[in-house]
Amino acid sequence: MDELDYRSLCELAAQLRVDSVRASSAAGSGHPTSSMSAAELMAVLLARHLRVDVGDPANPSNDHLIFSKGHASPLLYAMLKAAGVVTDEELLTFRSRGSLLEGHPTPRVPFVDVATGSLGFGLPAGVGLALAGRKLDRLPYQVWVLCGDGELAEGSMWEAFEHAGHEGLANLTAIIDVNRLGQRGPTRHGWDLSAYARRIGAFGWHTIEIDGHDAGQIDYALADARSTRRRPTAILARTCKGFGVSAVEDREGRHGKPLDDAERAITELGGPRSITVQVHPPTGPATPYEFSGGELQLPSYKVGADVATRTAFGEALAALGTARGDVVALDGEVGDSTKLEAFATAHPERFFECYIAEQQMVAAATGMQARGWKPYAVTFAAFLTRAYDFVRMAAISRADICLVGSHGGVSIGQDGPSQMGLEDLAAFRAVHGSTVLYPCDANQTARLVAETADLKGVRYLRTTRGETPVIYGPDETFPVGECKILRTGGHATVVAAGVTVHEALAAAELLEEDGVSVTVIDAYSIKPLDSDELRTMCTSTGRVVTVEDHWPEGGLGDAVLAALASTPVPLVKLGVTGMPGSATPSEQLEEAGIDRQAIRRTVLDLTRGSGGTVGGVVS
Amino acid sequence: MDELDYRSLCELAAQLRVDSVRASSAAGSGHPTSSMSAAELMAVLLARHLRVDVGDPANPSNDHLIFSKGHASPLLYAMLKAAGVVTDEELLTFRSRGSLLEGHPTPRVPFVDVATGSLGFGLPAGVGLALAGRKLDRLPYQVWVLCGDGELAEGSMWEAFEHAGHEGLANLTAIIDVNRLGQRGPTRHGWDLSAYARRIGAFGWHTIEIDGHDAGQIDYALADARSTRRRPTAILARTCKGFGVSAVEDREGRHGKPLDDAERAITELGGPRSITVQVHPPTGPATPYEFSGGELQLPSYKVGADVATRTAFGEALAALGTARGDVVALDGEVGDSTKLEAFATAHPERFFECYIAEQQMVAAATGMQARGWKPYAVTFAAFLTRAYDFVRMAAISRADICLVGSHGGVSIGQDGPSQMGLEDLAAFRAVHGSTVLYPCDANQTARLVAETADLKGVRYLRTTRGETPVIYGPDETFPVGECKILRTGGHATVVAAGVTVHEALAAAELLEEDGVSVTVIDAYSIKPLDSDELRTMCTSTGRVVTVEDHWPEGGLGDAVLAALASTPVPLVKLGVTGMPGSATPSEQLEEAGIDRQAIRRTVLDLTRGSGGTVGGVVS
Repeated sequence: MDELDYRSLCELAAQLRVDSVRASSAAGSGHPTSSMSAAELMAVLLARHLRVDVGDPANPSNDHLIFSKGHASPLLYAMLKAAGVVTDEELLTFRSRGSLLEGHPTPRVPFVDVATGSLGFGLPAGVGLALAGRKLDRLPYQVWVLCGDGELAEGSMWEAFEHAGHEGLANLTAIIDVNRLGQRGPTRHGWDLSAYARRIGAFGWHTIEIDGHDAGQIDYALADARSTRRRPTAILARTCKGFGVSAVEDREGRHGKPLDDAERAITELGGPRSITVQVHPPTGPATPYEFSGGELQLPSYKVGADVATRTAFGEALAALGTARGDVVALDGEVGDSTKLEAFATAHPERFFECYIAEQQMVAAATGMQARGWKPYAVTFAAFLTRAYDFVRMAAISRADICLVGSHGGVSIGQDGPSQMGLEDLAAFRAVHGSTVLYPCDANQTARLVAETADLKGVRYLRTTRGETPVIYGPDETFPVGECKILRTGGHATVVAAGVTVHEALAAAELLEEDGVSVTVIDAYSIKPLDSDELRTMCTSTGRVVTVEDHWPEGGLGDAVLAALASTPVPLVKLGVTGMPGSATPSEQLEEAGIDRQAIRRTVLDLTRGSGGTVGGVVS
Repeated sequence: MDELDYRSLCELAAQLRVDSVRASSAAGSGHPTSSMSAAELMAVLLARHLRVDVGDPANPSNDHLIFSKGHASPLLYAMLKAAGVVTDEELLTFRSRGSLLEGHPTPRVPFVDVATGSLGFGLPAGVGLALAGRKLDRLPYQVWVLCGDGELAEGSMWEAFEHAGHEGLANLTAIIDVNRLGQRGPTRHGWDLSAYARRIGAFGWHTIEIDGHDAGQIDYALADARSTRRRPTAILARTCKGFGVSAVEDREGRHGKPLDDAERAITELGGPRSITVQVHPPTGPATPYEFSGGELQLPSYKVGADVATRTAFGEALAALGTARGDVVALDGEVGDSTKLEAFATAHPERFFECYIAEQQMVAAATGMQARGWKPYAVTFAAFLTRAYDFVRMAAISRADICLVGSHGGVSIGQDGPSQMGLEDLAAFRAVHGSTVLYPCDANQTARLVAETADLKGVRYLRTTRGETPVIYGPDETFPVGECKILRTGGHATVVAAGVTVHEALAAAELLEEDGVSVTVIDAYSIKPLDSDELRTMCTSTGRVVTVEDHWPEGGLGDAVLAALASTPVPLVKLGVTGMPGSATPSEQLEEAGIDRQAIRRTVLDLTRGSGGTVGGVVS
């Protein structure tokens, strides 16, 4: 098609609309009306402004296009058809079993960087890609994000506006399809484009208000967006949901449904077309910047020293960053507490301060990994729960990111429950394909930090605020999926992780005095758990106690129970059952019933209760 | 004190500062510098503008004060001392074991409505209280929220600004302590008050910029805030962190630490004072509005009919709302899908559209329950994860709220994984004091909706998108903490919930043909689980299969394992292990391996594997 011909652009838009209707009708579900509103916006973008190498989705210089309004997936797939990336037959597999063209886009589809469909995620992820373009890859690619008006109610969008505005990410453009109608009914601001422009403009963005069905205005706005310097651009486009089909145009109650009479609608839209678009290839440099690397020299700690695992984490990540130029780190404005400061000091160019915006932090990490960077996003374990939906979306995005949560558990002490990560192990175990690690000493932490870099999926590492004794030598290795047997005894097995490892070891000493000998296992790899070894050890002692600085649900205890499910052994779970208040770390462990004395009592109860002959006088 | 005497107000501020230093020093931890910046703001508020009945925290006409910057708790406790609510001795128990005066405020403290300490929660919760004042209680109380500047990076704050601005909540005032310094270092905007004013003003708020250490300016601003009509007010106060003590004033690296030399600081601040403030009592009406109630007439469904549990939920909640005037509902702009529409139609005065802002929705519910209302906050199960941190804070707030998540599991079908709640059971089981319910049919759903109203803590109810057969009569009861034994058989026990109950029943029929008889349990109350009954039934069959439309971690299977931990039985967990794509609901269940055939195969493997003599010819 002649790229300068606005009539051709309108024809292309009609094709995108028709194909959105066709795909949804073939599927019997989907969001055609949400696709139709943005058809001109995407037609002009595709034909005139997007710069991608259609034959090579991995080309580092490609522009990026994110459908933050992921439910408009029929439109995205129609664009891919027009660009020759998918066939018409593939288009019509939309939403069917096995099809790559799912109800909402995922990176299974070429040119899709992150999964969307949970509104408010795409723009923050786009900020991550734009940061990567500017500061890591150092390539001039542009990041285009198609947003809905409804999703502007999500706070995460404003974290993104603030971050991008403050950074002046001119390589980011939000194209906002203001079609006035949400799922249930009208949005708060309807077609009041200026209401949005005032807000977004206040966050430092360049804003343009246009008629989203006028190819000329769109063309101007997209060109203006790319040429604007020092500021990201938001194009506020007034559109009609279901534009072009009178039966649904601008009508309520038509969200997320195929059209009742698709044939008639297609006729009204002028029938099917078979326009193919020659998408502009990227220009400019094709080689992303690389930071230098070197040999990995992990910090090492002397056995017997007292070192907080958060401290070891920070030092190890700084070392990893020295060894590998692809490691980057994101902070939730608590780097002094999480000890990410060590990385910030060593590698300021690869350190991203996200301020207190955990959702933006996780989304940015997800965006950066789409370009091959290895992000570590770090805050308190408790505050990672703020981004739980985004972690879920990272998993659906098949993203490889590492999350580090400090201040796990009641052992933080006086700050009280709002600062305690007590549900993090449950939450992250229940993330598809995740790895959950919880080291107990500094050398173990350092090794695990190094191991996480090349794991796939969402990795979670939990660190502890207080100092704990170093019990492992610096040369010991800690493969993910294994565990450490710290001592063996015949009467019971105590499975611990993190701070409770030290309580379990102390309990074992006390129990020796009681004449009871226990096996103590350090289950530093909570997921995957070393099921074989645990089964062997637990079956041999016949009684198990798990102890964790976490609510009893969904954490270490449940993981061990699952590992033993086929060949079960009586087990008592110790975890935090009461709501903590403020107290010293040791008081907290005692109050929660997860300290050495609680473990000792539990083992004694178990060994007595079982009628076995155990020890001597026990009190 | 003479309320008109600005010098006295400065003296009071000095006392609040001294007491913040004293409390933190006694504790050996805490956030004195973050307290000191807001001392004048809170002194003037306490002495001249706050209207509370100091002797009666439950007085419905009391103003509300929320410390969204919860780490400034020493300042709050110093205010309570000045008001005569706590003694000086109590003040000095700050952060010690058993003290009500925790590191961050919780409702254990008189006049504290919600727990804070996870930044960005207090203002959204304040929006809930302001909505309650305006639309439910219909009382003229004012809601004052002390915010930090750092927390303005949280998207949830902008959900709150948007919601309050759009509603014109003139009874809400945000007092923003712009002390320029976050935890790690300077904030994005430092002392650029106008950067904040532009943003907040764009969201429809009245904004005032003042010197936060000038009692006169503060007094004017607070009066202006109360008298402003139709708009909420944000007071942007330029302050110094650690104001008044030269060793810490406006210095980095002094966050969250007691002062090195407290004695010297107290001297510099003019020494301890013992000013007592006569807080103004509330004026105006004292009786909150009550909506009328009546008899509960739950909807009933015919056994054998096909009805989605989400439909039954909507109809039951509408009926509950008719019976009880204290029931209110909040929607995440998906009421047509969750079927909350039924409530919206029946009770528009008690229905709150929160648009796509799940954090604001949960926070508003938490604020409303602080005034005794019974909120139901409803969206897709998947999208409740967006508010997981706020659910955590609701639990720490000892809040009584009900969350309802629709579209649980892969059984939603074509929409794909972003729309599927697959980690919700794990996430909500790991909330302290929570109740987790998952009904399988319409009559059960209706009964459980009614039961949830008076439960304490965070209740979570999961509903299903598709229709399921009604298997229970309308008069059957479903006590929380119990389960239903749907059929008994000797070879194995299948424990299911929600959509998998129907698959388990169908599997049992198939297994009969295989000569295998199974017990089928409907574990509709996942937390608390009916551990006694499960133990009895599972022990008697000796083999257990759990099946859930959820990731394998942290949900029903882990709950059953925990119930059986002391007297274990071999168990196989069936859950969703692979990342789903799009497919029909039945294809999804098959693909995930949680359908009737998967259950049948698993039971057959178990019964064969155990060497027992089971059935006849099995294929």
